[in-house]
Amino acid sequence: MTITPEKLIASLSWRYATKQFDSTRKIPAAMWDVIEESLVLTPSSFGLQPWKFLVIEDPGIRSNLCAESWKQPQVTEASHYIVLAARTDLNADDIDAWMSRMGEIQGGSPETRAPLKGMIEGFAQAMSHEARHGWNIRQTYIALGQLMACAAVLGIDACPMEGISAADYDKILGLEGSGYATVVGCALGYRAADDKYAAIPKARFERARMIKHV
Amino acid sequence: MTITPEKLIASLSWRYATKQFDSTRKIPAAMWDVIEESLVLTPSSFGLQPWKFLVIEDPGIRSNLCAESWKQPQVTEASHYIVLAARTDLNADDIDAWMSRMGEIQGGSPETRAPLKGMIEGFAQAMSHEARHGWNIRQTYIALGQLMACAAVLGIDACPMEGISAADYDKILGLEGSGYATVVGCALGYRAADDKYAAIPKARFERARMIKHV
Repeated sequence: MTITPEKLIASLSWRYATKQFDSTRKIPAAMWDVIEESLVLTPSSFGLQPWKFLVIEDPGIRSNLCAESWKQPQVTEASHYIVLAARTDLNADDIDAWMSRMGEIQGGSPETRAPLKGMIEGFAQAMSHEARHGWNIRQTYIALGQLMACAAVLGIDACPMEGISAADYDKILGLEGSGYATVVGCALGYRAADDKYAAIPKARFERARMIKHV
Repeated sequence: MTITPEKLIASLSWRYATKQFDSTRKIPAAMWDVIEESLVLTPSSFGLQPWKFLVIEDPGIRSNLCAESWKQPQVTEASHYIVLAARTDLNADDIDAWMSRMGEIQGGSPETRAPLKGMIEGFAQAMSHEARHGWNIRQTYIALGQLMACAAVLGIDACPMEGISAADYDKILGLEGSGYATVVGCALGYRAADDKYAAIPKARFERARMIKHV
């Protein structure tokens, strides 16, 4: 255990979808490196990692993305802004790339991975193109969930951004035809002292409504 | 910050999709309570929490679910087994329930929440029934991502279970017609000392392939 239960719950309770960031505070480079590493370590089904994470540094691009995000100021005012994109397909090249990467890290012959490869191929081929894209999108939400939890325990504020025009993001980011498509954004940084949303009591349904013991 | 960056990365590196659990080790009740609280605190778009989490305690039901999970032993051998289910729709009742709950916790009149309510209604009505279900499923993957990250920092092993027959799970769990449907399972507990998967080096794509600075 690397965190006490009390501190974990305190962190998850502390976090909220930050609406107003302090635009003068930047996440230090060493801390940002940890955020990126946590993204790299996100689990995915079969380990396929069917995503790309775009860290938007260019102020002009952030401004353009903001315009396609109902002008929510988090896109430009947060220290960092990430666009999480999902692979639009799951084809032989994707599977080969993953088998090759596993070999680089774990060694062993391709034959030892043949059963896994066959399983992934069967899984992918049983789905339509649209279903494969949908599956990759769901995997990308694992990354979003892990990202928000990791930011919270690191004391970094975050705001997931679903209210965006993914198609316009794709145009702005040059993702059209790239094999990846925008899923969701996430602003990260530090809350402004006067963000009134920070003071609103966190609302969740009662545990008994949400969790059933069977 | 409630965890050091080094400990966070160590925890995320320590975790893996545990294949063999130590069936003699149970997560203590107080710790399990923290896991449940972390689930309750999962963020969701508009705060709607379109999910239920079923904690499967009945050994017979776990055995039946195992049969519909390619007989993967994690379902029965792990200390705890959760089925994450998503709401199959997003209708006026769901929105009313959420507005009502927000009022209980945050006070204020329904009028103060009318703009948010209108926004959610517009969002829901613009989608087909199938799209609403799909959106809820994606939200549920946020919960899966946060759950795996929280388990890791608490030193609890986990295995996400996507290789399941969701339709058969729904039958076994009586979810058919309930307005909720199985999305994914997650086994939680402690790795067996001889789980050979624990020793395999963690494989991820290179950061430069996955993360782009724009």
